Amino acid sequence: MQFLLEVVDILTNYVRKTFDRSTKVLDFHHPHQLLEGMEGFNLELSEQPESLEQILVDCRDTLKYGVRTGHPRFFNQLSSGLDIIGLAGEWLTSTANTNMFTYEIAPVFVLMEQLTLKKMREIIGWPNGEGDGIFSPGGAISNMYSVMVARYKYFPEAKTKGMSAVPRLVLFTSEHSHYSIKKSGAALGFGVENVILLKSDERCVKVIPADLEAKIIEAKQKGYVPLFVNATAGTTVYGAFDPIDEIADLCEKYNMWLHVDGAWGGGLLMSRKHRHKLSGIERANSVTWNPHKMMGVPLQCSAILVREKGLLQGCNQMCAGYLFQPDKQYDVTYDTGDKAIQCGRHVDIFKFWLMWKAKGTIGFEQHINKCLELSEYLYNKIKDREGFEMVFRGEPQHTNVCFWYVPPSLRGMPDCEERRERLHKVAPKIKAMMMESGTTMVGYQPQGDKVNFFRMVISNQAATKSDIDFLIEEIERLGQDL
Amino acid sequence: MQFLLEVVDILTNYVRKTFDRSTKVLDFHHPHQLLEGMEGFNLELSEQPESLEQILVDCRDTLKYGVRTGHPRFFNQLSSGLDIIGLAGEWLTSTANTNMFTYEIAPVFVLMEQLTLKKMREIIGWPNGEGDGIFSPGGAISNMYSVMVARYKYFPEAKTKGMSAVPRLVLFTSEHSHYSIKKSGAALGFGVENVILLKSDERCVKVIPADLEAKIIEAKQKGYVPLFVNATAGTTVYGAFDPIDEIADLCEKYNMWLHVDGAWGGGLLMSRKHRHKLSGIERANSVTWNPHKMMGVPLQCSAILVREKGLLQGCNQMCAGYLFQPDKQYDVTYDTGDKAIQCGRHVDIFKFWLMWKAKGTIGFEQHINKCLELSEYLYNKIKDREGFEMVFRGEPQHTNVCFWYVPPSLRGMPDCEERRERLHKVAPKIKAMMMESGTTMVGYQPQGDKVNFFRMVISNQAATKSDIDFLIEEIERLGQDL
Repeated sequence: MQFLLEVVDILTNYVRKTFDRSTKVLDFHHPHQLLEGMEGFNLELSEQPESLEQILVDCRDTLKYGVRTGHPRFFNQLSSGLDIIGLAGEWLTSTANTNMFTYEIAPVFVLMEQLTLKKMREIIGWPNGEGDGIFSPGGAISNMYSVMVARYKYFPEAKTKGMSAVPRLVLFTSEHSHYSIKKSGAALGFGVENVILLKSDERCVKVIPADLEAKIIEAKQKGYVPLFVNATAGTTVYGAFDPIDEIADLCEKYNMWLHVDGAWGGGLLMSRKHRHKLSGIERANSVTWNPHKMMGVPLQCSAILVREKGLLQGCNQMCAGYLFQPDKQYDVTYDTGDKAIQCGRHVDIFKFWLMWKAKGTIGFEQHINKCLELSEYLYNKIKDREGFEMVFRGEPQHTNVCFWYVPPSLRGMPDCEERRERLHKVAPKIKAMMMESGTTMVGYQPQGDKVNFFRMVISNQAATKSDIDFLIEEIERLGQDL
Repeated sequence: MQFLLEVVDILTNYVRKTFDRSTKVLDFHHPHQLLEGMEGFNLELSEQPESLEQILVDCRDTLKYGVRTGHPRFFNQLSSGLDIIGLAGEWLTSTANTNMFTYEIAPVFVLMEQLTLKKMREIIGWPNGEGDGIFSPGGAISNMYSVMVARYKYFPEAKTKGMSAVPRLVLFTSEHSHYSIKKSGAALGFGVENVILLKSDERCVKVIPADLEAKIIEAKQKGYVPLFVNATAGTTVYGAFDPIDEIADLCEKYNMWLHVDGAWGGGLLMSRKHRHKLSGIERANSVTWNPHKMMGVPLQCSAILVREKGLLQGCNQMCAGYLFQPDKQYDVTYDTGDKAIQCGRHVDIFKFWLMWKAKGTIGFEQHINKCLELSEYLYNKIKDREGFEMVFRGEPQHTNVCFWYVPPSLRGMPDCEERRERLHKVAPKIKAMMMESGTTMVGYQPQGDKVNFFRMVISNQAATKSDIDFLIEEIERLGQDL
C-alpha cells in the first residue's frame, strides 16, 4: 500500500508538470535508443523479481520517455487533454477491476451505462431515447458493429449461413471517411471492393448526394444489394460533416441502413450552437459517438447506438450458459454481454458518467464551444498570414484547421512539380524538429492529390489562445530556413 | 489535485477492505433498487454540475454497491484478484492516457508490447520468439483475429472480394470451446453453420481427434474447405486441455490453420510443472493468451500471437495517411496500428510488463502453481464428501472444479427426472442466497445434459485454503434445507 502511494506521488507530480507550459511535451528518443536501454531503465523482462525501488524508477522513466497527451500544446490526435475527474474515474475503474458482461459482477456500472446511453439517444433525438447501444473499444469497433447490425437487420440468415448465402452486399462511404469502414468491410466478409467510396463536393469535403444515388443505381443494375451508407459527422482530416438529411432521404428511398459515424463530431450534439451541423442524425439507424475525443473523456470511451431495440442482441447472441444463466435471481435483461462481439468488456462508462455528473451537460457544451472558438481563432489568424495557405476555403466546421506552411524559399515559386515536391517535405521536417525539441505536437498527412499539410485539431481543454499563438510561431521558427 | 488525492484515499481504503475477510464480497441490490436511487446516490445525469463533495460521495457509493472482485472469496469469474503492482500500472496507464497505434505517441508502451510479445512467443516455443502479435480487447477479439488471419493466409482475396468469392470455408472447434469462435464465425461472414462442433471424449472434456478427422473428411466430401481448427487449452467450464499434438498432426495432414485458445490455460505455460498440458502448442499457427485471467493481471490484457510475421499487417492494413505517414523521422515499422481492426487501441501492456518486472517469470510460476494446488486441495476435500458429487471423474487439469451440491433432501433419491429437476434448481438457489448474504461468489451453469452445477475456479492470488474451506461450508450452510 505504501508502494501504491509512492506511485500516486509520481503520478500527481506528472500531472502537475503536464499542465506546466515550461515542461516539454515529449523527450524524444528513437526506438533503438530506448531498446538499448537508457541509464537505469531497461525494458527487458527477466526470471527474477526486481526490487520495489527499481519498479518505482521504472514507473518514473516510463512517464519520462513518453508523450504528455494532456499538455496544453499537444494537438497531435483527436483525443487529447487530461481531465482530472475523468482520471479519478479511471483510477476507480481500475480498482474495481470488473467486467461489463453481467449485472452480477458490475451492477452499478451496467446501470450507469444504460442510463448514459439513453441520455445520448435522447440527445441524438430518437423518441424517448428508445433504442439500444453499448460501449465498445473504440470508434473502429463501433463502426464495425453498425455494419454487422445492418447486415443482421436485412439478412439475418448471414449469421447462420454466412455471406455466401446472401446477395452481394454493398456499403457506401465517403472517400474522406474513416478507414474503419473499409476495415469492417474486409473483416466482416463483404470485401473492400464492395465498400464504394463516394466523391466529395467542390470544397472536397462532403459527400455529394447525387453521386451517392448514381452509385446506388449502378450497384443495383449490376445486381448487387445496396445495404448501408455511412455518413461521417466530422471527418478525421478535414472535420467535415456529410449532409445527413439528404443521405437519409436516399436511404429511405432505397431501403438502406443509415449509419452516422460521429466518432469525432458527435460531441457537437452537446452544443446548442453547433449541433445543427449534425442535423438529420435523428433519422440514422445507428450512430458512433466517441466521448474520448471531443468531450475530453480519457481513452477509451466509444459508444455505438442503435435505434431499433433487440438487433444488437439478435445479431451477436450465442447464449453461453456459463455467463448468461436464465435462472438468476435478478432481471437478467440487464446482462449486456450477449450484445457484444467481446466476452469480457472493459468498464469504459464510469469516467464518462462521473465527468457528466461533475460538469453537467452544460459543462460539456462549454468545453466544445471553447474548442471551436479556439479553432476559429486559429483559422482567422493564419488564413491571410504570410507563409500559410489553407487546404480548403471557408471556415472549418469542426476544430480541424488544415494548412500548409510555406517557407520563405518557396514563397515566390509558381505552382509546379518542383514546388509540390519541396512543399511535400516541409511538414514532415517541421514535425521531426518539433518532436526533437519537444515543444509541441501537431499531425500532418497528404490527402488525395494534396501534398503533406498540417492538420490542427483542438479537443484539449487546457489549450488557450496563447498555445495557438505558440504553435504558429513555432512552425515559423522551425520552418523558416527550409 | 486535492480532489484526486481524496479519491486516492477512498480507493486505498477500498483496497484495504477488499483483502479483509470480514468485509462482504458484495452488497447486493436489484436493478430497480439501484435505479430508484439509494440514499444520496442517484445515477441520473443532469444539466448542471454537481459539487466535488457529491462527486466524492458518488465514488464511494459506486464502490459500495459494486462487487469486490479482488476479495479472497470471489471465485465467480476466470479473472479475479487485485494485484497492487498491476493496479499501480493501470493508474499510470490512465495518467499517461495515450494510444497504441503509433510509436510517435506511445514510444515506451509500443516497445514494451513488442518485447513482452516476443517473450511470450519464446515461452510458447516458437524459434527465437519469432512471429507477430498484438494485445487486443479480450480473448473473444483475440480469437476473432486468429480466424481472420487464417482466412487471409489461405484466401487473401477474401479481403478485397469478400466471402462470396471464396469456397465455403469451415471452422472446427470443440463443443466445450468458448462461444467466441461461433461469434467470430457469425461476425466474419462464415456463418455459424460453418463452425463445426467436435465431440468430446468419455470424460466429456477433450476433443477426440478421430472425430475431428471424420468431420474434416465429411466437409471435404461436401465440397467445403476445412480452414481452421481451434484447440482449447483450458476450457471455460471444465478447464480441459485438447490434445494439441494430435490436432496439429491433422492440421498438417489437411493443410489447415491451427489456433490454440489459451485465453484461460495459457498461463500454465509459465509453470514448469504444468506446461506439459499444452504440449504441442509450439506447432500452433496462432495462440490466444489472456494474462488477465490466470496470471492475475488487471482487466483487460489479452494477447493474440501469430507464428508467421506479416500476416496481421497484411490482413488488416488500410494505410491511413493521417496516422501512418511513411515519411516520419523514426523507423515506422514500430507503428502497430495497421495490424489491428481497431484504430485507437488502449494501452494494456504496461500493467503486465510492470508485474512481470516485479514478480519475475518465477513469480508468475509460483502464483500459478499455488492456484493449482488450491484447486487440488478443493478437489480432494469434496470428491468423497457427503453431499458433493463431481461432474467429471479424475483430477482437474486446470483450477476448474465442477461439482453438484446435493442437499440432504435429495441424497437418498434414485437418479430420475424429478431428482434432476430438483437438483437443477439447487445451485441457482444457493447462488442467490450467497449473493444476498454477500459472503462469497462462485459460478454455476448447466452443460449439455448435465443440470446446473457449480464451477469453482481459482486465479485469485489472495485465496488460501481457509477460503476454500469457507466456500464448502457456506454451500452446505445455505443448501442444507433445500
